[in-house]
Amino acid sequence: MRISELSRQTDVPVATIKFYLREGLLPEGERTSPTQAQYDEQHAARLRLIRALLGPGGLTVASAGEVLAAIDDPPASMHDLLGVACAATSPPVGPGLDHTRVHELMHSWGWRVDEKECDAHAALETALAALDAADFALPPDALDLYADRMQSIAETEIASVPRESAAAAVSYVVLGTVLVEPLLLALRRMAQQELSGRRFGNSTPSTRPARQI
Amino acid sequence: MRISELSRQTDVPVATIKFYLREGLLPEGERTSPTQAQYDEQHAARLRLIRALLGPGGLTVASAGEVLAAIDDPPASMHDLLGVACAATSPPVGPGLDHTRVHELMHSWGWRVDEKECDAHAALETALAALDAADFALPPDALDLYADRMQSIAETEIASVPRESAAAAVSYVVLGTVLVEPLLLALRRMAQQELSGRRFGNSTPSTRPARQI
Repeated sequence: MRISELSRQTDVPVATIKFYLREGLLPEGERTSPTQAQYDEQHAARLRLIRALLGPGGLTVASAGEVLAAIDDPPASMHDLLGVACAATSPPVGPGLDHTRVHELMHSWGWRVDEKECDAHAALETALAALDAADFALPPDALDLYADRMQSIAETEIASVPRESAAAAVSYVVLGTVLVEPLLLALRRMAQQELSGRRFGNSTPSTRPARQI
Repeated sequence: MRISELSRQTDVPVATIKFYLREGLLPEGERTSPTQAQYDEQHAARLRLIRALLGPGGLTVASAGEVLAAIDDPPASMHDLLGVACAATSPPVGPGLDHTRVHELMHSWGWRVDEKECDAHAALETALAALDAADFALPPDALDLYADRMQSIAETEIASVPRESAAAAVSYVVLGTVLVEPLLLALRRMAQQELSGRRFGNSTPSTRPARQI
């Protein structure tokens, strides 16, 4: 199909498709003349993937380029693959974080301390430091509960990684990381609303009897 | 203390403190002369909270203002309170989403369908639409697993809301929403790395025998 038809089919403007071509996110079509190229269903699928990464995935064009490069040319190990997903979506982390606390937590959960190129530990340290800075005390054992629930989620996710090809595995892991995150957060909020409705109804918290927490 | 001492103690530049004062995020100190004001520990605590909301919380100045206003003047019900937390942190949502699918899912989980001012449903719909657009199929029952784990997390969180005052409850819910989200996502990634290490070691996925998924 011509670029105009690809645009119609995917609902992406021609100018945007040309931008993705220039940025190397979308491979060139097959040239049929100096000014025309033919595109196929694979281009349409790739376009939908690019839109998902840049839109709901929240990636920058540069990060999306790295993710797509990893899908086209998969890294050698599953760990490197998780590293690509992690690096593409992690905000940059400041220096001077306290590794000891996270290492102690990991030890208590039976998780191995193993520094990766992309340091999810740093993200956890940053989040814990923010709670401290805001004088926010988590409920007792909340961190253990969070870790346990996330481990049970990760178990299912890792067991479901397709193994028929590295490309399929990369695509699955990267998309599973960036696209499932907003889904989990939405579910947490919906569950909070559901449970607060069950517990509090529409009453003001302060009109209920105080309770030890 | 003077503004310079407040700056030293909290490690926030004087110019930034003045910006927060102008934006109404930080209350004015007690005037001791036309050009000087005195600040106390409450101002220092408020500054740390502002920094946590704007930094790791990822809020805009406008959203942080709304959250702080809710802490200063708590809404009447717990539901409104969750609405403030949700509205402050949710990206704007496009029109034309399919509510049916989310309502069916909620029904299957025993959650009541109840449209809120801030629609966490829309965030879930957006996330599901993105998975569809990227041709990403979740493992069977993954959504049920996610909902179940998020419900068990929300149970602990809602049960831990302090009830001695509305202000304490607001502060707890809002901060628990915005500051715990990055923590949960970091834990999911760490758990994925841990479990992928256990399952795959450093092998390439494609060098392992293919397996039905």
